[in-house]
Amino acid sequence: MGNADFECPHPVAIPPTKPFLKSLTSGLKETLFPDDPFRQFKNQSASRKFILGLQYFVPILEWAPRYTFAFFRADVIAGITIASLAVPQGISYANLANLPPIVGLYSSFVPPLVYAILGSSRDLAVGTVAVASLLISSMLGKEVNPNEDPKHYVQLALTATFFAGVFQSSLGFLRLGFIVDFLSHATIVGFMGGAATVVCLQQLKGILGLIHFTHRTDLVSVMRSIFSQTHQWRWESGALGCCFLFFLILTRHYSKRKPCFFWINAMAPLTSVVLGSVLVYLTHAEKHGVQVIGHLKKGLNPPSISELAFGSPHLMTAIRTGIIIGVIALAEGVAVGRSFAMFKNYHIDGNKEMIAFGMMNIAGSCTSCYLTSGPFSRTAVNFNAGCKTAVSNIVMATAVMITLLFLTPLFHYTPLVVLSSIIIAAMLGLIDYEAAIHLWKVDKFDFVVCISAYIGVVIGSVEIGLVIAVIISLLRMLLFVARPRTFLLGNIPNSMIYRSVDQYPTANNVPGVLILQIDAPIYFANANYLRERISRWIYEEQDRLISTGEPTLQYVILDMSAIGSIDTSGISMLEEVNKNTDRRGLKLVLANPRSEVIKKMEKTKFIGKIGQECIYLTVGEAVAACNFMLHTCKSNRVTVQEFDAQDNV
Amino acid sequence: MGNADFECPHPVAIPPTKPFLKSLTSGLKETLFPDDPFRQFKNQSASRKFILGLQYFVPILEWAPRYTFAFFRADVIAGITIASLAVPQGISYANLANLPPIVGLYSSFVPPLVYAILGSSRDLAVGTVAVASLLISSMLGKEVNPNEDPKHYVQLALTATFFAGVFQSSLGFLRLGFIVDFLSHATIVGFMGGAATVVCLQQLKGILGLIHFTHRTDLVSVMRSIFSQTHQWRWESGALGCCFLFFLILTRHYSKRKPCFFWINAMAPLTSVVLGSVLVYLTHAEKHGVQVIGHLKKGLNPPSISELAFGSPHLMTAIRTGIIIGVIALAEGVAVGRSFAMFKNYHIDGNKEMIAFGMMNIAGSCTSCYLTSGPFSRTAVNFNAGCKTAVSNIVMATAVMITLLFLTPLFHYTPLVVLSSIIIAAMLGLIDYEAAIHLWKVDKFDFVVCISAYIGVVIGSVEIGLVIAVIISLLRMLLFVARPRTFLLGNIPNSMIYRSVDQYPTANNVPGVLILQIDAPIYFANANYLRERISRWIYEEQDRLISTGEPTLQYVILDMSAIGSIDTSGISMLEEVNKNTDRRGLKLVLANPRSEVIKKMEKTKFIGKIGQECIYLTVGEAVAACNFMLHTCKSNRVTVQEFDAQDNV
Repeated sequence: MGNADFECPHPVAIPPTKPFLKSLTSGLKETLFPDDPFRQFKNQSASRKFILGLQYFVPILEWAPRYTFAFFRADVIAGITIASLAVPQGISYANLANLPPIVGLYSSFVPPLVYAILGSSRDLAVGTVAVASLLISSMLGKEVNPNEDPKHYVQLALTATFFAGVFQSSLGFLRLGFIVDFLSHATIVGFMGGAATVVCLQQLKGILGLIHFTHRTDLVSVMRSIFSQTHQWRWESGALGCCFLFFLILTRHYSKRKPCFFWINAMAPLTSVVLGSVLVYLTHAEKHGVQVIGHLKKGLNPPSISELAFGSPHLMTAIRTGIIIGVIALAEGVAVGRSFAMFKNYHIDGNKEMIAFGMMNIAGSCTSCYLTSGPFSRTAVNFNAGCKTAVSNIVMATAVMITLLFLTPLFHYTPLVVLSSIIIAAMLGLIDYEAAIHLWKVDKFDFVVCISAYIGVVIGSVEIGLVIAVIISLLRMLLFVARPRTFLLGNIPNSMIYRSVDQYPTANNVPGVLILQIDAPIYFANANYLRERISRWIYEEQDRLISTGEPTLQYVILDMSAIGSIDTSGISMLEEVNKNTDRRGLKLVLANPRSEVIKKMEKTKFIGKIGQECIYLTVGEAVAACNFMLHTCKSNRVTVQEFDAQDNV
Repeated sequence: MGNADFECPHPVAIPPTKPFLKSLTSGLKETLFPDDPFRQFKNQSASRKFILGLQYFVPILEWAPRYTFAFFRADVIAGITIASLAVPQGISYANLANLPPIVGLYSSFVPPLVYAILGSSRDLAVGTVAVASLLISSMLGKEVNPNEDPKHYVQLALTATFFAGVFQSSLGFLRLGFIVDFLSHATIVGFMGGAATVVCLQQLKGILGLIHFTHRTDLVSVMRSIFSQTHQWRWESGALGCCFLFFLILTRHYSKRKPCFFWINAMAPLTSVVLGSVLVYLTHAEKHGVQVIGHLKKGLNPPSISELAFGSPHLMTAIRTGIIIGVIALAEGVAVGRSFAMFKNYHIDGNKEMIAFGMMNIAGSCTSCYLTSGPFSRTAVNFNAGCKTAVSNIVMATAVMITLLFLTPLFHYTPLVVLSSIIIAAMLGLIDYEAAIHLWKVDKFDFVVCISAYIGVVIGSVEIGLVIAVIISLLRMLLFVARPRTFLLGNIPNSMIYRSVDQYPTANNVPGVLILQIDAPIYFANANYLRERISRWIYEEQDRLISTGEPTLQYVILDMSAIGSIDTSGISMLEEVNKNTDRRGLKLVLANPRSEVIKKMEKTKFIGKIGQECIYLTVGEAVAACNFMLHTCKSNRVTVQEFDAQDNV
């Protein structure tokens, strides 16, 4: 509007255009190094830099010098506690993964040592995880039958572990840790719940003492395979299982109510293993349909580099499995590490953790260990036991080593049903229905994601559930951009603030002026939508004004405060809107275009088309200018007054 | 902050929570009916509603009554002009699609009539399009060799057309037109350019008079198949082709410079066909290696419902082809229709257009026509020829009908090389390198999309190029959400406006207060990133303050104006940030949370945690409050003054 006599008090600045390469590099830095990990390296001497670098990649060098005896005492207690959990859990999860029980023990020996050296979390307790074990048995079980060709199956499991490690560490090195962020909290809740349900169903095999069982994990086939062989059910093992399950759940509830008695919960699994074994040994129940672990061979992890089956026809499956379990393990481990770090107010670098996890699994896969991560249950016990540093992992590893060297025979009579009940007890804790309810209350969409992940896992398969959940969550983000909301702004009474009338019903509109706010970047995906929506706002407002007989519309103000980015389609959309308003005899006015938007508007000469004097720093100034134009003669003074009064955002 | 004596002037409103179903339905309406198509139906009588409904779906009923003789005269001229373009183009593109030339003529007869009845554009000239023809030959050619089994090939092409029609019209009925929007302008530019290049390469077959030619479309195999048979090149046809090509390009350039002579450009193809045919007839060039169309059978479109090969083993390919060409055709047709409607200031409904296109192709597939759309070139000619309504399409159809009934024999001697040069001349116009340069200047990312589409099409295949481009453009949108920018805000001199210091270098920061602005919705994908980025902002600021010896940081203000949406991960991220700042002895203050955000903050009790008195309507008020706290005693009056002065956004 040719407001020669209305000078704009705060012109909108057009930032200088950075050279392309500079902006590119800064963009990459923001994307890959948001936490600026090398900050401490700045202006240091070369030797200091070297030491810092070493400490950066090998955290133990950083904290070991400051390690005290008080720490050590605490760590020993914590270490022994988690060891008593690690041994039975290790055996159980190996069982769940259809791997020889001994592999589970191996997996609690080497990886914790590696993590103690490379890991940056002080509370994380390393060990095998149920979901990954389940994934291994379900994904690899499709290709190779663990009962018919156990050797090859184990090789594939180790290979998958190797690739999981490679994938994890390369994610870390490439600073691509944010990929894990794409597993939203809702996804993980639903996914974990589903996986836990599936694992519990799988355990019915052990509880009912069935010998033949489906290798599929979905509800239907599990149910079929259970009820197709009702005559095979063994009441002895059933009864035994229920007793131990009851015992375990009881102890957990007790410890939950009295945190100082955490150790009861921690010791429970080992206790039930001992009790169960003794019981079987005395009653010779193994002869009455109670299956037992049987012989476990003594000795430490045998090397298994030669076992990695790179030549196997199922290599692709191994790689796919490795990548999936790798991501899942990372998601759990990193999340667990972060949350406990939050408790104790120290920071852990996600990418560094990934490197640690990766190295731990690569080393593991070469020493007959399968995939390990930082399981929540064990870490929580470790935390409650008052661990101070990763030394607790070393203590645990030592305890497991002693078990491997001397105590394995004791597990000969351990009944599988006890292991099943240990798993079930652990899994029931993972079905977090309260979280699901919370999601429903707070964010319906997150709830949909969560529940579809759950259903996908239970009805379909673990991968299906995961993929569905991720796709839905991505669709939500796309939908946000593809269908941005536009708000009608009004004036907050006795102020010059302009806000959405939906949120502030008291806000009243400015006669002759339509103020709209767009809520998202303008991209190709929403340009057409926004064009149509804006023109609809305009004619609806015009209809309203005609019906109420108010003064006709003169100006359309677009508040661009929330438009963070724009592409070429967006710019041409703005041009069309401008043409459109001109045709309707309206004037388009822009308020507070952000740096990227104004830059592109300049490059495309759009500023020239709409006119520099139609761009204001705030909606308030824009409205003041419009009012000034609307009734210059009478209210010149008024606007100027408003004007002095309206210096603020 | 316990500011008992500092009353907040403009409290932040928490909008009432809508019932779930209500918000769901309104959300769906916004997504699927942004343009509110049934607005005119409101408060009308039933009979009127019926008529309006009929007119809505059959636009001809709307404009036919108002049709005048003046319109008719204009439409006849335009119709004849485009017919003279339609006949040779029809034959050429059919040739390109490896279909019998007569099918090309058929396709310019029925579909235009259908569109004239159902279409809502006044300028669109219906006809076959090069890219779709190319896609048919490349995608179906892989399955069935058009030379060995022409009948089956034609059947598949018709089936693909049928499914394209079904897909298009169902998109329209389901109001899913926005799917087309996901083909951004950049994608289409690159894709069209690439396709045009590929088409030109294909024409070298005709120009060089080769008999055997590859069915693949990628650069490498085309080049190989050309240079592997250099001995087969026929200089006669080569020379002929170059002459006509030169002639066509010349005429186009001339008409471009003098728009009043558009008809020269429009007539050129027909002229060259006539010239070419006469030349061949006189010189008997067909005996010297100049291939001719040969016999075209007289008569109108035979019905072809029985030809639709639903039982074919290649049905899936036909369906896939149908969907892809359907989308491409829509993208071009709708875009063309929209842009010409923009010229003449009338509105066309994308979804209605899709139904029209779909119906036209379904009808076409039952009357031996293959895929048609609204090609840009023909529509532009129609527009220049001064068409007034879709009647020009009817006129064109009539002209084509006459050709089919009486004139087909005349095309017996038409040399293929002329058709090739017609195609090349048309295609060269589609390689829009200027647009690509413009993209590079304005938006590097769009340029990348464009160029990767181009390269994908030329090196790989048409589908590959398309998929790559779409994926990259989607990634850009995801990246925007996954890596939102955060800005440091400063105070614009002699005002109380706060803006990004990057954009407004004059803006200076407030002592003791750090003001940050986040640029995108807070979702699971960026929650972790934002947490790390914000804490980095804080310690960087603290380091800076220490180095410069300024007063230490007391408050962190988050400007949430640009945060349009938030999910549960986002809320818990805010909670973590709050904990984090508390730990550092800082106070977190929020400015202008939007309705959805404040709603969720309330539901999750976060407002209680941070304190109602830490949420302000504007950054200005937040800063005023912080200053008030910072030096209550001395500057109580000051802040109150600032306060009166700072009523505005």
